[in-house]
Amino acid sequence: MEILRDIAGVRAFVAAARRRGARIGFVPTMGFLHDGHLSLMRAARRPAEARAPALAPVEAVVIASIFVNPTQFGPNEDFSRYPRDEPGDLEKCRAAGCDAVFLPPVEVMYPSGHRTTVHVDALTGPLCGASRPGHFDGVCTVVLKLFSIVGCDVALFGEKDYQQLAVIRKMATDLDLPVEVRGHPIVREADGLAMSSRNVYLDPTQRVSARSLSAALAATRAAFEAGERGARTLEAVARGVIEAAPGAEIDYIEIRDAVTLAAVTQPIDTDVVLALAVRFGRTRLIDNTVLAV
Amino acid sequence: MEILRDIAGVRAFVAAARRRGARIGFVPTMGFLHDGHLSLMRAARRPAEARAPALAPVEAVVIASIFVNPTQFGPNEDFSRYPRDEPGDLEKCRAAGCDAVFLPPVEVMYPSGHRTTVHVDALTGPLCGASRPGHFDGVCTVVLKLFSIVGCDVALFGEKDYQQLAVIRKMATDLDLPVEVRGHPIVREADGLAMSSRNVYLDPTQRVSARSLSAALAATRAAFEAGERGARTLEAVARGVIEAAPGAEIDYIEIRDAVTLAAVTQPIDTDVVLALAVRFGRTRLIDNTVLAV
Repeated sequence: MEILRDIAGVRAFVAAARRRGARIGFVPTMGFLHDGHLSLMRAARRPAEARAPALAPVEAVVIASIFVNPTQFGPNEDFSRYPRDEPGDLEKCRAAGCDAVFLPPVEVMYPSGHRTTVHVDALTGPLCGASRPGHFDGVCTVVLKLFSIVGCDVALFGEKDYQQLAVIRKMATDLDLPVEVRGHPIVREADGLAMSSRNVYLDPTQRVSARSLSAALAATRAAFEAGERGARTLEAVARGVIEAAPGAEIDYIEIRDAVTLAAVTQPIDTDVVLALAVRFGRTRLIDNTVLAV
Repeated sequence: MEILRDIAGVRAFVAAARRRGARIGFVPTMGFLHDGHLSLMRAARRPAEARAPALAPVEAVVIASIFVNPTQFGPNEDFSRYPRDEPGDLEKCRAAGCDAVFLPPVEVMYPSGHRTTVHVDALTGPLCGASRPGHFDGVCTVVLKLFSIVGCDVALFGEKDYQQLAVIRKMATDLDLPVEVRGHPIVREADGLAMSSRNVYLDPTQRVSARSLSAALAATRAAFEAGERGARTLEAVARGVIEAAPGAEIDYIEIRDAVTLAAVTQPIDTDVVLALAVRFGRTRLIDNTVLAV
């Protein structure tokens, strides 16, 4: 497995793979890897859905990046204390079958005088966009840079960050990027908590309370599957579960259009996502589930 | 010469050229082509400066685009009356040796629901950015889209639109785009007027007055070469020439840093650009010259 720290190194590695006719799969991460990330790396070996089936098997090359992107953190967020474990991460990438890992220093990604921002309107307004101003501009800009550096055919993102995936898909479509943006199902702990690098912040009591997120999704899904179509009623089901968890402070619980993230009118007659963000002390967790009609 | 109107057609054309090992040169235009555009198309055949010299000559493929981009026009600007001549343009592209021309309809470039914008800060504030709010966001967004569609190795832009070239260079650097952005010297009419598709708007009297732009640049250059280093003094030389031209209304005449477009302190001790924008009736013309120390 190649460990690459500069842009020229990535380009040379990818150019050599291209000369062999390989397809490039890419998994951008902020490191402190868990099984959610590793499932993305394994999925990146599979053929891109948008391509015609190849007559002969095509070599797949999988590249991950580990970069805690400062521009997607707000001034009062956890950039400086975001958990990092480079040796452990590299071992996990190796075990997951990555062919290369790109670990750029901040000054490689943002040399002095960086001035360019990519902004996706509308989809970035609600949900996490409302409580994290500028967050998605930072995400879009760094993801576009990484796509440009790697020149990947397919890039994989976890569905836990549902809005992020929707925004990146929209960016890729709107800018005609030659990349297939692929989502991958949320990977959960045994008790239902969605895997997140930020779970490490939770103390034992908070860790128990945090089960309420997936429990709220499950309860709401059950009501939906029993026929309830009132968006506000379903949101209230989720809210009731979270409010019963000690120490949980709700940032948002919202049902929105699964593709556009627009507000939904009742009764629900299109696929929607139930998305929630909840704080436990200084730790903010997100989770979601799609309710398909 | 291939005439392409959809994105899939461009991608297929470029993919075939890539399989032959060709290098892709790209000239984005808004059509109504003049010798300035055609010189870009001829220059696009030459090797990219950033590439190592090839052992064997590399085939060059030249693609031009013709697209009057609505998002870079303000509400009171000349989008609807911008001159168009598709048959004449195609004949000129053929004569200039283009291998393909991309002429997308607006709905191909901006399908309903387009939401993404690329913004370059700082460089877009002064000069044309001050009098054309949003203009450079429109330019950057469409140019990034065209780069993504074409997948070019080198893209050429005329230096008449000096700020546009500086902004696009900055965007390409900041977003790590795998494209060499190359400028090309201004092409002028016999009497010095910089070639522009908008020159067709000028009536005969305005056409004579418009000689004052290049005359102002020449007079200022002469003062600079004679040793004058006061930016305000040099701007006043240019202003004097323009103000003597009947019907000329000055939008701006400014000396700025040639790379960052920052305001310059006096005396001038770094390469600067003298840039100007002048209206003749409803027609706004721009011109510039670099003063190298």
